[in-house]
Amino acid sequence: MKGQTKYLLDENQLPKAWYNIVSDITFPVPPLLHPVTKEPTILPPPLFCQALIEQDETKEQYVEIPEPLKEIYQLWRPTPLFRAHRLEQALGTPAHIYYKYEGASPPGSHKPNTAVAQAYYSKEAGVKRLSTETGAGQWGSALAFACQLFDMECKVYMVKISYQQKPYRRSMIHTWGGNVTPSPSEETQAGRGILAEDPECLGSLGMAISEAVEVAATNDDTKYSLGSVLNHVLLHQTVIGEEAIRQMEMADEYPDVVIGCVGGGSNFAGVAFPFLRERLTNGVKTRFVAVESAACPSMTKGVYAYDYGDTAHLAPIAKMDTLGHTFVPAGIHAGGLRYHGVAPLLSALHREGYIDPIAYPQIPVFEAAVMFARTEGIIPAPETSHAIRAAIDEALDAKEKGEKRVILFNFSGHGHFDMGAYDGYFAGKLVDFEYPAEKVQAALCNLPDVGTTA
Amino acid sequence: MKGQTKYLLDENQLPKAWYNIVSDITFPVPPLLHPVTKEPTILPPPLFCQALIEQDETKEQYVEIPEPLKEIYQLWRPTPLFRAHRLEQALGTPAHIYYKYEGASPPGSHKPNTAVAQAYYSKEAGVKRLSTETGAGQWGSALAFACQLFDMECKVYMVKISYQQKPYRRSMIHTWGGNVTPSPSEETQAGRGILAEDPECLGSLGMAISEAVEVAATNDDTKYSLGSVLNHVLLHQTVIGEEAIRQMEMADEYPDVVIGCVGGGSNFAGVAFPFLRERLTNGVKTRFVAVESAACPSMTKGVYAYDYGDTAHLAPIAKMDTLGHTFVPAGIHAGGLRYHGVAPLLSALHREGYIDPIAYPQIPVFEAAVMFARTEGIIPAPETSHAIRAAIDEALDAKEKGEKRVILFNFSGHGHFDMGAYDGYFAGKLVDFEYPAEKVQAALCNLPDVGTTA
Repeated sequence: MKGQTKYLLDENQLPKAWYNIVSDITFPVPPLLHPVTKEPTILPPPLFCQALIEQDETKEQYVEIPEPLKEIYQLWRPTPLFRAHRLEQALGTPAHIYYKYEGASPPGSHKPNTAVAQAYYSKEAGVKRLSTETGAGQWGSALAFACQLFDMECKVYMVKISYQQKPYRRSMIHTWGGNVTPSPSEETQAGRGILAEDPECLGSLGMAISEAVEVAATNDDTKYSLGSVLNHVLLHQTVIGEEAIRQMEMADEYPDVVIGCVGGGSNFAGVAFPFLRERLTNGVKTRFVAVESAACPSMTKGVYAYDYGDTAHLAPIAKMDTLGHTFVPAGIHAGGLRYHGVAPLLSALHREGYIDPIAYPQIPVFEAAVMFARTEGIIPAPETSHAIRAAIDEALDAKEKGEKRVILFNFSGHGHFDMGAYDGYFAGKLVDFEYPAEKVQAALCNLPDVGTTA
Repeated sequence: MKGQTKYLLDENQLPKAWYNIVSDITFPVPPLLHPVTKEPTILPPPLFCQALIEQDETKEQYVEIPEPLKEIYQLWRPTPLFRAHRLEQALGTPAHIYYKYEGASPPGSHKPNTAVAQAYYSKEAGVKRLSTETGAGQWGSALAFACQLFDMECKVYMVKISYQQKPYRRSMIHTWGGNVTPSPSEETQAGRGILAEDPECLGSLGMAISEAVEVAATNDDTKYSLGSVLNHVLLHQTVIGEEAIRQMEMADEYPDVVIGCVGGGSNFAGVAFPFLRERLTNGVKTRFVAVESAACPSMTKGVYAYDYGDTAHLAPIAKMDTLGHTFVPAGIHAGGLRYHGVAPLLSALHREGYIDPIAYPQIPVFEAAVMFARTEGIIPAPETSHAIRAAIDEALDAKEKGEKRVILFNFSGHGHFDMGAYDGYFAGKLVDFEYPAEKVQAALCNLPDVGTTA
């Protein structure tokens, strides 16, 4: 039996810079708009420190990674690239399947790639505390981890239903010294307003964002931190793809297709953008497959329109693939894929034809997860398993067509905190939710009126 | 702020052989005895395949690691060695603290180092299935992982109280295709006997071993697998220390003290034996600190005597540091440290003065765990946290004495499946169990009568 092959970089090969795809895009990406005036705006300074605002706007091709941050990165980076020989054998495919393994970071996912960067720049700017929201807790635990390393406080609003049902990522936040509150809460005006209308409300990501933004807006020592969607977040994640490019060179292959799951879009962008650079600037014909949940199909079934990022309309308005900010997706196990919109940069690339989105219901996703665990030995998070499903289907398609095909996907995180979902799958209790056409249609009636700007 | 420093080896630097400390020991290690005849014996062939029996007996200094196994090892090995700068700073110590990080393997601990080796040799011998026992599930999940990679079946008897209270390692076993049964069960004569006396019995490791051994003894296609204690298990774990020796060379330092936690003794032996070789053969004056739980103090409070390894007296008798095989320790969170005995090889080294044991209650252990998580960023398992407590105390002692001291400990596993224990600690619910003198005294009355052999 053939083992996997591992392609490793040493610390000296850690990328020196993040890649900014904006520099190589020839079409316009619509600007953010102010939620009240509807005028073009940068990220609001009360919420973000100057360095991150500049990174969100920069047209430079590369942004240098500061030395102290490279030291922190080395706790888990460079991450390995694996060739999945045993999975290939099990599928009987001529395709070569590679995966970039982001699961070995202390919080267990790609999220700390940007969490430590945001904490670093905020600390440099004298910020004492970062506030954020989290669903299942992957992002909240990553930010608590990052704040602890830089001796800052971390305030996390965790969607109440997850706070109650998934206690262990909450425990991680606590262990790393973070302060975590179930949302909606009595701590903010936004939370109190929601609870006044519905005291039993179990929360949503949009509500938790409103609470975290409010705390940053009303406290001088606090800035807000977002784990996906924004340009600077996608920028930080490109460290994944920059490493993967060098590792594919070591393997002496180049991907025909690059795959990642998409919630807000940061892990997909992280692996894809450096390879997209080669397509944009050198005409390399790689396909890019963005995999979303059929329960939250922003790219495959949404509209490309200006929409709010949060329920209280405190954050800037962004033009993006959206299902409407009032849409609340079904309770799938891939909590990280339950955001109503997709990063503006990714949405624009999608509309220009650079990205092929695809959506899967969760049962075939868990089939793929179990197959991966039983061949490659690593148990993936439900979010990651969406990318695995697509990689397996690409490999089966290559088999049917008798093609050698080089497939690369991003293994965004492990499933250690999702074993209850696996139990549900084995017990036959998972449900494949239908595309919620009516709910989406209703939610799309709540898009902001931005006049002629759109 | 200074980050950690990481010392990495590439795949070509993966050790070519395991180190067998028996070859360098000048004092006698008492042989195993047959549980019925009380005569010296090798491991019983109905339970173990020939290659593993030979490894248990060999006097060769090195045992070569087969190529296919090295390929599998590369899924997570070589593992990194870190210098814990942030922990040192927090302690204000002149000591240098290094840790070998075994938490990045797919099951999250050092256990697969021997699990994949045992699965490999068993597969080569035509075995179809491995049976084993597990407490909290760390070993059971590692063996299920290993069997799946070699396309073998895996049968795990899991202590019933853990099966009920800690469902997620059970879910991992299931995800990797293993079959897991709560013990005592109706499936074996041993289990039925226990249930006939006490239908509500919640099980113990000794009972689960009896069930797993019986299944192997009564099925031709099945062998038994043990996750610690035996010579060949300790042998496989020396891959840890062999890597660490090269990594300490990269750091241009040599440990004054090497620390590991001890349940059965395999992770401690794994890190310590290669450094012990330098003391045995070159007179290098390193100290070796074995850290156990005060609730199960086999080395610090037990006797050195021949004892049974399981409650049904099916496995060989071994001379070891023991609290008596009928002793059932309190329900500490470090489930992996709850075995009544310690590896015969480790016990003999202890009695000859090569190993300094120390025992800690669990509350100071969790204090150390949280300090480590908040400085170094990685959340340790409760077992591992015993080693961390001892490393911190060494560093504080060095500070008091104004000594530069080089400390190396083995980070045997992460705490992702132990977050409930952290919750208990933060809620002030943990209890420091007293040394159970009377229970131990009673258990020691049940030692086997081995006549003059001892």
